[in-house]
Amino acid sequence: MSEVTPRFATGAPQNLEERFAGRAAHMQPSEIRSLFAVASRPEIVSLAGGMPNLSALPMGMMADVVQKLILNNGQEALQYGSGQGHPKLREQICEVMALEGIRANPDDVLVTTGSQQALDLISRIFIDPGDVVLAEAPSYVGALGTFHQYEAKVVHVETDDLGLVPDGLRAAIKSVRASGRRIKFLYTIPNYQNPSGVLLPADRRTEILNICRTEGIFVVEDNPYGLLGFDKPSPNAMRAEDSENVIYLGSFSKTIAPGMRVGWALVPPSLKEKLIIASESSILCPSNFSQLTISSYLADQPWRDQIASFCDLYKVRRDAMLESLDEHFPVTAKWTKPGGGFYVWVTLPEEIDTKALMPKAIVAKVAYVPGTAFYADGFGSWSMRLSYCYPTPERIREGVKALGGVIKTEMARRGGNQLN
Amino acid sequence: MSEVTPRFATGAPQNLEERFAGRAAHMQPSEIRSLFAVASRPEIVSLAGGMPNLSALPMGMMADVVQKLILNNGQEALQYGSGQGHPKLREQICEVMALEGIRANPDDVLVTTGSQQALDLISRIFIDPGDVVLAEAPSYVGALGTFHQYEAKVVHVETDDLGLVPDGLRAAIKSVRASGRRIKFLYTIPNYQNPSGVLLPADRRTEILNICRTEGIFVVEDNPYGLLGFDKPSPNAMRAEDSENVIYLGSFSKTIAPGMRVGWALVPPSLKEKLIIASESSILCPSNFSQLTISSYLADQPWRDQIASFCDLYKVRRDAMLESLDEHFPVTAKWTKPGGGFYVWVTLPEEIDTKALMPKAIVAKVAYVPGTAFYADGFGSWSMRLSYCYPTPERIREGVKALGGVIKTEMARRGGNQLN
Repeated sequence: MSEVTPRFATGAPQNLEERFAGRAAHMQPSEIRSLFAVASRPEIVSLAGGMPNLSALPMGMMADVVQKLILNNGQEALQYGSGQGHPKLREQICEVMALEGIRANPDDVLVTTGSQQALDLISRIFIDPGDVVLAEAPSYVGALGTFHQYEAKVVHVETDDLGLVPDGLRAAIKSVRASGRRIKFLYTIPNYQNPSGVLLPADRRTEILNICRTEGIFVVEDNPYGLLGFDKPSPNAMRAEDSENVIYLGSFSKTIAPGMRVGWALVPPSLKEKLIIASESSILCPSNFSQLTISSYLADQPWRDQIASFCDLYKVRRDAMLESLDEHFPVTAKWTKPGGGFYVWVTLPEEIDTKALMPKAIVAKVAYVPGTAFYADGFGSWSMRLSYCYPTPERIREGVKALGGVIKTEMARRGGNQLN
Repeated sequence: MSEVTPRFATGAPQNLEERFAGRAAHMQPSEIRSLFAVASRPEIVSLAGGMPNLSALPMGMMADVVQKLILNNGQEALQYGSGQGHPKLREQICEVMALEGIRANPDDVLVTTGSQQALDLISRIFIDPGDVVLAEAPSYVGALGTFHQYEAKVVHVETDDLGLVPDGLRAAIKSVRASGRRIKFLYTIPNYQNPSGVLLPADRRTEILNICRTEGIFVVEDNPYGLLGFDKPSPNAMRAEDSENVIYLGSFSKTIAPGMRVGWALVPPSLKEKLIIASESSILCPSNFSQLTISSYLADQPWRDQIASFCDLYKVRRDAMLESLDEHFPVTAKWTKPGGGFYVWVTLPEEIDTKALMPKAIVAKVAYVPGTAFYADGFGSWSMRLSYCYPTPERIREGVKALGGVIKTEMARRGGNQLN
């Protein structure tokens, strides 16, 4: 009778939901999750997804690469590997990063299951509930979701057509600190940002690195699109300028193929052991099968030319989108003019709610991502992300035309309402 | 002057370590981590690792499977996929599970990057710091590491040569609850357990399920080795008997190849959405490349025969190990006689510290895993795990003989010391 009452008494089993940890409350579906099911219907022109266009990837060549790998080195390719990732691939990753000015030691690279896993591990290692993460306004929905699961508060930093605004960063740091909160890091996508498509110029990179060093804030530089500049190379990576205060994330998802799920983190040596331990706890080791396929491809195939082919393919689509935006969108709308990557960010008149507009767009057979998905704070309701990476140029023109019509109709309706 | 002092003042950047989240203190290297570097030297007979033996897997066949996949379906195999996993593979997984008596809906399956990822996600969803996880004594080192990172307290439950002891489970539940702690789940490996190699009989499965249902505790059934019974099939999975109170984890790492990193969780429907969201936050989606390779293999190749070939290969090695243990180990040592899987668990006289003995074993060119690695509480110092899965039978005999010599020498030395 003196026994302590258990929190879960004996008797019939409770629902699993009643057993969830506190953090499970922060695992909520993103706004765009249900959207993708609709957007993937064949009759819809999807300007919503960020799927790379693999039509430029020669499948006969890829099939040969994998076949030879299994025949010549199957015992290793199909076996468990090291938690940190395959040593040869880590060397090749350093060669890839050298294209953006980074000098790195393969010992400081951790191979991950896509760079999403790197975001998860970094969040796990650094974020205590309530910590602040600074991020561009707007920023990548997948990163926001992970930060949210680790109970960070994301504070967005002002951006313009050249990306992060240094004075905006100073102001954000000051304001957060005035509120007594702790800033853990700045999360930034300097090249052809997701969702805005903008490129941060070299001088701003230097200034932002200086601010972060001075303020004792480290930088998480996420760079999936850096090699996808259409007309000229992007400026050197921020990591090229600062090896101590930058955690760099890279990925083969956009330069080779996302189905491999191979990304990486390049980290200061003091972080490496924790990162490997966290990754081993999470997945034991990254896939040798994927890693060695990519390693063989990089060793034996003209991968730089392949990236150039991807750039040509995306440039034609970018042009189709910008031209049809000019033609079909209202004059009061504004949009970014990306020099690379996958995305255009459109800002409409403030009275247009892009989330509320989605059902009408779907009826007109076009899909996009409403702007609020890219903000942690509910902002962005009159903006949208349009992707040009996947559809054909003809379909892009068709989709933009349809969407322009939907927006103009909505504006006319609202204009009409105001007259009533 | 009235500004709140930031916790990280401006000035030179602090070390990254100073920014770690509280949970990072629980990310510690496992005892066996440094061991594997030594054990993998070619001159050492490693009885330490749990690497499946892929010499029975026809590499020409695997190369053809992958080549055809990329040629016929490369656009899908190399693209992003769904967060839950490929629908066709989830159907095939249900066919695989049917071999162990499980009737399941593919909708309730989540494909993971090895079943380690499932362990991580379940821990993330359920474990609040201080929660108790019940586990066999001893249990899988990788699961203990993950539970530890999520700040669970693992309480080991008594086992014997037939696995978990039902009365031991009742006693553990009573004792934990008397201490006022909350039990989140029972983690168990009923088939050819890692590290003990023992098989839980059908009647104990039923009894343990009844206890857990009555006590309101759910079961995480981890089953990588269930199809690797050498002489007869293992009893039905616990999940076959209880679909509401069991989370089931499966893997292709031991029946096909671990380099693919494809495992899965079969969960009650109420858990599915949270699990998918947690997985998307962690890795975005599992690899289509790996998933569709396995799917093609299952669809077109005699995979049941392949598993039988693996069983033949492991049975010969198991026999070699048991025979040489009889021949070379001291009569005061005891060990399990596994009917399947990869492992033998050896219990030595209590005065032998198997961790302290490792350097001497390495000098004798043999490696094993000290027993303490499989306990969360420091127990197990006079036991060891021996793996027979990977070396040839000749090397196994050589390694066991060398290790028997090291142990006998140590016992004689200690006996001698006692006489001094």
